Parts: sequence; C-alpha cells; structure tokens
Amino acid sequence: MTTSALCERFGIDFPLFAFSHCRDVVAAVTNAGGFGVLGATAFSPEQLDQELTWIDDHVHGKPYGADIIVPAKFEGKGANLSRTQLADRIPDEYRGFVDRLLSEHGIELESAPRLGSTFLTGDTGEELLDVAMAHPIKLIANALGVPPDYMIEAGRERGVPVAALVGAKEHAVKQVAAGVDLIVAQGTEAGGHCGEVTTLVLIPEVIQAIDGAVPVLAAGGIVTGRQMAASVALGADGAWTGSVWLTTEEAETAPHTVQKMLAATSRDTVRSAGRTGKPSRQLVSDWTDAWAPHADGHPTLPLPLQSMLSEPVLRRIDALADQGHPGAKELATYFVGQGVGLMTKVKPARHVVLEFIEDYLAAAQRLGSSLPE
Amino acid sequence: MTTSALCERFGIDFPLFAFSHCRDVVAAVTNAGGFGVLGATAFSPEQLDQELTWIDDHVHGKPYGADIIVPAKFEGKGANLSRTQLADRIPDEYRGFVDRLLSEHGIELESAPRLGSTFLTGDTGEELLDVAMAHPIKLIANALGVPPDYMIEAGRERGVPVAALVGAKEHAVKQVAAGVDLIVAQGTEAGGHCGEVTTLVLIPEVIQAIDGAVPVLAAGGIVTGRQMAASVALGADGAWTGSVWLTTEEAETAPHTVQKMLAATSRDTVRSAGRTGKPSRQLVSDWTDAWAPHADGHPTLPLPLQSMLSEPVLRRIDALADQGHPGAKELATYFVGQGVGLMTKVKPARHVVLEFIEDYLAAAQRLGSSLPE
Repeated sequence: MTTSALCERFGIDFPLFAFSHCRDVVAAVTNAGGFGVLGATAFSPEQLDQELTWIDDHVHGKPYGADIIVPAKFEGKGANLSRTQLADRIPDEYRGFVDRLLSEHGIELESAPRLGSTFLTGDTGEELLDVAMAHPIKLIANALGVPPDYMIEAGRERGVPVAALVGAKEHAVKQVAAGVDLIVAQGTEAGGHCGEVTTLVLIPEVIQAIDGAVPVLAAGGIVTGRQMAASVALGADGAWTGSVWLTTEEAETAPHTVQKMLAATSRDTVRSAGRTGKPSRQLVSDWTDAWAPHADGHPTLPLPLQSMLSEPVLRRIDALADQGHPGAKELATYFVGQGVGLMTKVKPARHVVLEFIEDYLAAAQRLGSSLPE
Repeated sequence: MTTSALCERFGIDFPLFAFSHCRDVVAAVTNAGGFGVLGATAFSPEQLDQELTWIDDHVHGKPYGADIIVPAKFEGKGANLSRTQLADRIPDEYRGFVDRLLSEHGIELESAPRLGSTFLTGDTGEELLDVAMAHPIKLIANALGVPPDYMIEAGRERGVPVAALVGAKEHAVKQVAAGVDLIVAQGTEAGGHCGEVTTLVLIPEVIQAIDGAVPVLAAGGIVTGRQMAASVALGADGAWTGSVWLTTEEAETAPHTVQKMLAATSRDTVRSAGRTGKPSRQLVSDWTDAWAPHADGHPTLPLPLQSMLSEPVLRRIDALADQGHPGAKELATYFVGQGVGLMTKVKPARHVVLEFIEDYLAAAQRLGSSLPE
C-alpha cells in the first residue's frame, strides 16, 4: 500500500493517526484531516458511550477510531473474578512497600486509596467493543497482544478495520495470521507499552516480514512531521502518535505532568514495569526507580494486579503534585515516549497537525534535493 | 549544511561513512564513492602505519579517515601506569568470576590468557594520532567522549576535520564548543558504545541543539539505504555505519560470529557493560548475561580494566567457537547494532554501497510520491 492509498481507504487527507484519551484531541485531529483514535480502556461502557456520542456530534461524519486494550494474558483471565477477588491477589508485602514509599515522600498512608482502577482489568473489553461498534467508528485497535477473536469477527461483520500494535516482527507475522487489517509497528522509544527494538530498525524489519499483507503505521518517538517523513521513507504508510497530544491545549494531562514533559529531555523517560506490570515507557521518577529491575528495585506484579496497585495511588500522587506537594512531585510519572525531548510548548491539537504537515513536506523536499546527480 | 555540500567537502559521491577495523572494507567503501574510516585503536603504532600505507596504495588518493578511541576518563589516566600496573588493579575476585564462568562452559582455566589487550588502554591515543596524521587522512574521529585538545589542535594544524560520536544532545553541544568539525549522532540501536536515546529521536534533537554549527551524520541501526534516507529526512547530512560491514566478504569477523549475526534478529543484541566497562551494544550471549545489571549479574570494572579482563578471554572464546566448542559458542559475542536483524547475507563491501545507493533513491522516491496533493 502507499500513503495515498491508505488515506483513501481511511477517508483522510494526511496519514497521521492520533491516539488520545481525550475526546477533544480525537475530534480536533480528525477535523484537521488526520485520524483521531480514542483510548477507551479507562472508561466504563456508559462513559465510553457518552464520549463517542460527543465525538460523533463534533466530527460531522469524519473518520475516527477507538482503542481497547485487551491483553492476551492477565491474572485471573477467564475465571470471572470480581475486582475484590482480584485485589485479594495483591500480596500485603506489596501494599506495605507502596505505603513505605509514600511515607518516605511525606504522603500520609490514610490518604492512599487501596483499590478502584478499571484500567487493564481485561474482562471489560468485549462490553467496550460493543459500545464502540454502536458508533460509526472507522477503526478498532488493540494495543496489547493479538486481538481476541471476538474483536476480529466484530470488525469483519461491521466492515471496521482492526489494528494491532506490535513491537517485534515476529508479533507482526502472528497478528497478520490472526486476521488484523493494519499493523502499528511501535519502537522502544514509544510511550506506554513497548518492546526493545527501535522504530528505525523495527519498521523495515516488520515490512519485510509481512511482505505487504497489510498496511503498516510507524509508531514510537514520532512527534514531528520530519520523523513521520522518515517513517514513510522507511516504507511505512503513515504514522501512529500518542505522546505529542499530551501537551496540547485540549489534553487533560495533569498540569504538573505537562510541566515535567515540557522540561524533559529524551533521556528523562524509562521503560518500567512499575505501572502496569509490563514494560511501558514513562517519565522517570521516584516511582519508576522504586520498581526498577536493578538489585535495589522491588519486583512487580503481573497484569492487571500492578495497575490495580499503582493506578489509584498514582492518581492521588498527581492530585497532590498539582497542589505543589514536593514528595508527590518526585513520585509523579506518566506514560510518554522519548519524543518528549522535542515537546517544548503547549499548542492546540489542530496546530500540531498543521505543523506535522508543513514539517513533513519540508523533510520530503530535503530528501528529494539530496539525491546524487 | 546539505548532503551535497557535505559530499563536496569530503570529496565523496555519496555521504555514507563506513567504520571498520578492516582495511579492505575501508578501501572498498572509499573506492565505491563512500568514505571509509579505519578503527585504529586495536593497532600498535607500527601496525597502524602498515594498515594506512596499504590503504594509501589501494585508494589512489580517494578520501578515507581514521578513528581513535581516546576516552575522556579512564582508570590510571595521567598516572603513566604500565600495563602490568594497570592489570594489578583488576581484583582477584573478578578473575575468579571469569574462571568460574569459563569452567561452567567447559573451557579449561589454563587456556585462558590473563592479560595483553591494548584495546582502550587510553594512553596510546597520541602516538596513534601522530601515525595517522603522517598519512593523507581526510577525517579523524574520536568515538568516546570529547576529543582531547591535542587531537583538535592536530586536526586544525593539518586541515583534517575532527569528528566526534555523541549519544545525547547535551554531549553534542559540548563537542561543538570544544571545536569538533563533524558530529556523529549515534542512537541506542548502534553497535558498540551507545547511549539510551534512539536514532529517530536523537537526530532531530541534536540538530536543533547545535543549530547548524557543524554537519551531523546519523548513526545507530543504519544498515540499509532506506534508513539512511530516513536520517536525511530527519535533517542529517549523511550516515555513519559500522555493523553492516561486519558480514561483508572483506571483513575479518570470526566465522562463527558471522553466522550468529546472519541468524540474529534485532532482539538478539543487548546494551552491556560486560566487554569494556561502559554500556556497548553487542550480541546477547552467556557472557553478556553474566555481567547484566540485574540482581544475579556481576558488577563490571571501569575503563580500561574491564577490557583488559575481557578482551583476551573473548578472543580465546572466539577461537574455540570457530573450532566448534559448544560452551564457547554460548559465550561468544561481538559488538553489533539492532540493524543485525536486517543483515542476512554475506556480500562484498562494494555491493553493500551500491545497494545503499539504490535503496536510498527508492526511499526518496517513495517519500516524494507520498506528498499530499
């Protein structure tokens, strides 16, 4: 496929896909000629329905998608456990470790909630998918592992392409065999869950491995049009982005986190299992240090237990950090890729899209005029 | 600068720089229109003189360069220690650990040499530089840290540009302030010493940080023309490569290592301090596992002690692995980047250059024809 064929297939002007948990970003990117994708996993089915209805009202038929994380493996999968039953699987020693960590940072133990995250608990995926499919979505994505059969079947039935994120060529081959319609090949520089291979190496490896079976979007570290152009030079059909939208005007990122991101260089992120139990890239902080895989770091729990332990605490930390609590500021972290080093200013999402296009064109021009005569 | 200005400045047809310890590769790349750079650090001054004389005889005035590693910091620096005195600083416990590791792999202790590497011992840099400067080299590079003043001064005096490798934008700014003429910005996917930032993020960061003060070559994971084209789209003036030459017909890479590389995917490398004491990317093996930074790994020594401990042993391991020794095969490793996943065939170095050009042109064409109308 080519970028223009991809644009035609998805009904867009520019093959820039934007993943965001914020409906305003999704709508802004879609309305600017790109393709917004709502990260749906943190919502309840009712909330998701509201968010998608709002998007429908704001994009006037322009295309957008939804991303639901349905991990292939997670603790208690298939056992139909209640959240309380799952929470009981978190060892007391882990809770004690978190309490001590908070206490060392001057955070009162009684203020730390013990439970309550719906993030990555796995079993809500099918319900969320049903809600999403009741809206005119033009893409459904699964950000972790091979999409479950029900997702691929639902996509087939409704004519909605199914995308999957991969961090290794072997995974891309598996995903294509499972029937996905679009591969997002995501390098280690990406925010959130990622593998170890960099985007510059992964894209040509994946493209070679799947040999044109489905289109490939490049992801990982892409926050500018020149990086998107580089990805197309590598053979990708477009780009999948996430981090760059976190510092847009529309994003609901915690204010102190936005400040941390604007000040961060590319060396201020780390691939850590401390948030979800699987390696994901985020801002380095005292939280990620505490769960580091070195001799002094604490081991982590499997999906979704680590999230159930960490998310409520990290939300409390964010709230305290926004109030200026010094210990909370040291602990606060959020998913973001190495591209954070190039994110230095808060901008409207629409401007980010326009800058991407301009920068992409300049990069294409630069490469074109570099040709040996 | 532009790629064509860089080509004019260095007298080359195509801005592909090839680092190799093998004079045949250096000459082949230079003769094919690129720019060969001989890795000089492993040679004695007499050997280096012979190698460069051979190159002079084979490139007929075409441009080439030399790379000398002069680390800014190393154990015993300035103390004018003999190699024996330096070797005395290697704790017995470390030698015992290596002996046990070899023994676990069925390698006789008495066959393991204890000493003898000249690699990275630091103090020979100035002598090697004098030898190189007596030849018509067109570039002198320092692959680790800021080049010493004597290197920058010698370059100025003789009109030979000085290049420095960096893995972070802050280092690029320092290098430019120190007076280097060319920055090689090398991503974490690179073979050998590398930082943590990926090429796709590092190149735009470095270019922005030094703001056109000197040209920038992209390095790290680049083993194909499309990746080189991507680097130029990112704003680089050309590419610096190393790994891709290790599996050329001319290279002197150990045969079993060539086989490992041809079979490796991009996930078969690791950034390990187990070889030199500083993190460098290489094939993952039982040797790199033994020195991994996790709870079970052994700590490493500073430069140049870790090399003095490891290099003689690893050479012995290579020799045994080439004889088919199973334990030695498990231990054997060599510097190589993640691009190894795209290296699947032994080819003449000249063919690699020609394929780079062809693939570069195709990538530029692909990007050019992707432009939104």
